[in-house]
Amino acid sequence: MKVNSEEYTKKPSRRQEAVNFPVVAIVGAGFGGLNAARTLKDSPVRVRLIDRRNYHLFQPLLYQVATAGISPDEIAYPVRAIFRKQANLEFLLADVTGVELDKNLLLTSFGPVHYDYLILAVGSETNYFGLDTVAANGFDLKDLDDAEAIRNHVLFMFERANLEVDVPTRRAMRTFVVVGSGPTGVECAGALSELIRLVLIKDFPGLKIDEARVLILERLDRILPGFPEDLARAAMATLAEKHVEVHLGTGVSGYDGRQVFLESQPPIPACTLIWAAGVRAESLVDRLGLPQGRQGRVIVQPTLQAPGYPQVFVVGDAAYLEDGAVPLPMMAPVAIQQAKVAARNVLHLIGGHPPVQFRFKDPGSLATIGRNAAVARIKGFKFHGFFAWLIWLGVHLFWLIGFRNRLLVLINWAWDYLLYERAVRLITPERRK
Amino acid sequence: MKVNSEEYTKKPSRRQEAVNFPVVAIVGAGFGGLNAARTLKDSPVRVRLIDRRNYHLFQPLLYQVATAGISPDEIAYPVRAIFRKQANLEFLLADVTGVELDKNLLLTSFGPVHYDYLILAVGSETNYFGLDTVAANGFDLKDLDDAEAIRNHVLFMFERANLEVDVPTRRAMRTFVVVGSGPTGVECAGALSELIRLVLIKDFPGLKIDEARVLILERLDRILPGFPEDLARAAMATLAEKHVEVHLGTGVSGYDGRQVFLESQPPIPACTLIWAAGVRAESLVDRLGLPQGRQGRVIVQPTLQAPGYPQVFVVGDAAYLEDGAVPLPMMAPVAIQQAKVAARNVLHLIGGHPPVQFRFKDPGSLATIGRNAAVARIKGFKFHGFFAWLIWLGVHLFWLIGFRNRLLVLINWAWDYLLYERAVRLITPERRK
Repeated sequence: MKVNSEEYTKKPSRRQEAVNFPVVAIVGAGFGGLNAARTLKDSPVRVRLIDRRNYHLFQPLLYQVATAGISPDEIAYPVRAIFRKQANLEFLLADVTGVELDKNLLLTSFGPVHYDYLILAVGSETNYFGLDTVAANGFDLKDLDDAEAIRNHVLFMFERANLEVDVPTRRAMRTFVVVGSGPTGVECAGALSELIRLVLIKDFPGLKIDEARVLILERLDRILPGFPEDLARAAMATLAEKHVEVHLGTGVSGYDGRQVFLESQPPIPACTLIWAAGVRAESLVDRLGLPQGRQGRVIVQPTLQAPGYPQVFVVGDAAYLEDGAVPLPMMAPVAIQQAKVAARNVLHLIGGHPPVQFRFKDPGSLATIGRNAAVARIKGFKFHGFFAWLIWLGVHLFWLIGFRNRLLVLINWAWDYLLYERAVRLITPERRK
Repeated sequence: MKVNSEEYTKKPSRRQEAVNFPVVAIVGAGFGGLNAARTLKDSPVRVRLIDRRNYHLFQPLLYQVATAGISPDEIAYPVRAIFRKQANLEFLLADVTGVELDKNLLLTSFGPVHYDYLILAVGSETNYFGLDTVAANGFDLKDLDDAEAIRNHVLFMFERANLEVDVPTRRAMRTFVVVGSGPTGVECAGALSELIRLVLIKDFPGLKIDEARVLILERLDRILPGFPEDLARAAMATLAEKHVEVHLGTGVSGYDGRQVFLESQPPIPACTLIWAAGVRAESLVDRLGLPQGRQGRVIVQPTLQAPGYPQVFVVGDAAYLEDGAVPLPMMAPVAIQQAKVAARNVLHLIGGHPPVQFRFKDPGSLATIGRNAAVARIKGFKFHGFFAWLIWLGVHLFWLIGFRNRLLVLINWAWDYLLYERAVRLITPERRK
């Protein structure tokens, strides 16, 4: 294939009329990239938004795809649809493989792409902390295919267990281990337990419910490390009500697909392990030669600029910045706020003004454990139970992109809530060709 | 894995109370299998429904998944959810690999399964008529993964073409060849053309619309062979309005992924070929040693019994039966009606009564070409245009299983119709692990 890389390599472009406007490349169409691009909407720049997916993924609800509650397309929105009316933006579906920082050049699967300013919003990837057997035999939860793979596998285990006479094997098929107790781990375990105890029990009339177990394994001595202690205790109580077994102080050392090996306890027989114990900056940033902090995140200046490259900004999960002495968490609100500041700083630089420093305004934290149950910390106030759950519902519906997606998710939630159903209980085939 | 195959091999069963009731195995959860199982709902039999998928697929709308209009889960319904209230039915997720007709035994991926009566409703598979290069490089449209693969590929071709400077290559990327002009081919081509001309043109502002082509290649001298001549002519006119190029008398001889080779014309450069030119009975029936007619279909008696095996019934696409001198078509209405008769004949045999002969009541045929356009033949009446399209909409919504699926499909159709949008324009990743 001949790619018109010239066009993207050289500054002048035939495509856009505003040939003399500077090019702002944004890598990643997650929460960061999206908000950076929108901030530049009416500015005299040419935006090149690059992602290896053609959709923006609403990751906070990914665990609901994994637990058969909603459909993948309800939390994915085509990037081109989002930016249809933003005339100064061009979308490129490409994998960014490197950055030549000294040449202002992105290396992509479709050839080099020039930029005058760069906003890296590449996000994070799963961190297995070197546990290769877990990476090989466990599931993670970062993209739509991961979520569908979990859904297919969980449902398939119930089908197989239904035909299995050997009791230990059958129990292992119905044991689901979630490693890590951040919001993703807690939400995933709660939703799995409800899927089994409220829905699958109706699908499998012979199911002995005490043979089905959902476990959370957490290395630390508490769950939900980002939340206040009392909310974590409330969440522990709710998890117990929902029959999720939480094992604190339990580190995982390996997984062979049949047994979860622990650091200082006997192994747990389980045919399913979901790894929600950590993320790290997308590995692309390892190849940039920039200083990196914990979890491989690029240590940025308070203006979000990369040290030594004032035209390069890093935001969101891929950026390391401290607030007080505490590193900013790898969460959507940080990415969104940083992206807006980075985009405004690009405009400041273009206008000859100094960039401003980023200051995080913490909107709080939310996590749901299932029906009628959530924990919420909002501006110093703390809630748990039904009211926190209503806040959780409202916030997630509000942030979801697109009226259709909101409507369809709401219908599925109502279905689930009123009828105790999970509509997407499908074991979908994977194309082998 | 130890499977409790004994339980399924021997007649007595711990599982079901009615241990002395005869076992009716039904292979396939398509239109045939579903209707056979439902017909046996309150009868003194034990039904074992077996399918390699855990869902019933509403195939008539599969082309809408392939053209980004609806989501896979909206036309797939979990088998266990359908039969939750049918106490005499047990579902087995398994691949049936053979039948030992003399031993009343099904061979499956989970071990042998005994039956007293068997209803084979295994459906059909794509018939490439020995064109291996087409099978290797083209797409077919039989299951959800096929439809998603087409959707991903079509959207990806537009992304690639957008970056391609070589005009012939770019044109080939935007050329979509549909082979075959039955309802599937016509509906698929019409929906593709509308996807490009009404939706993607908004996603790609630089798109030269005359570089995008949708072709139907038909070996015969007319389209829609199952429809009356005048309706086929009306469909031809509508296809022309929708910029679908129909090439009659054009047989395909091969496809290398870049060029479609024709029997007596120069090749057509095209990066996409969708094969909708034929189906044949599922290859399982080739291994049964039963007499087969055209398209590998098992030649059944007028009672739908397999010759020599009165306890075995074959229905739907896998069965060959003539109505007058004309073979019954491989269509849902035939499968549904035959399944009901086969199930009733099983009950007749159990009750010591003779089985009845099958008589097809033709409800007519329907095909849509896109917005406001369809052809319909119903009990001697023929319609085309807007009214036929309304009939098409109503009939398909009616036959779709589940209130939620109907609601979601209706929302997506309204979206598409009112906003000229296709919501599911996603290039989803395929899990490689």
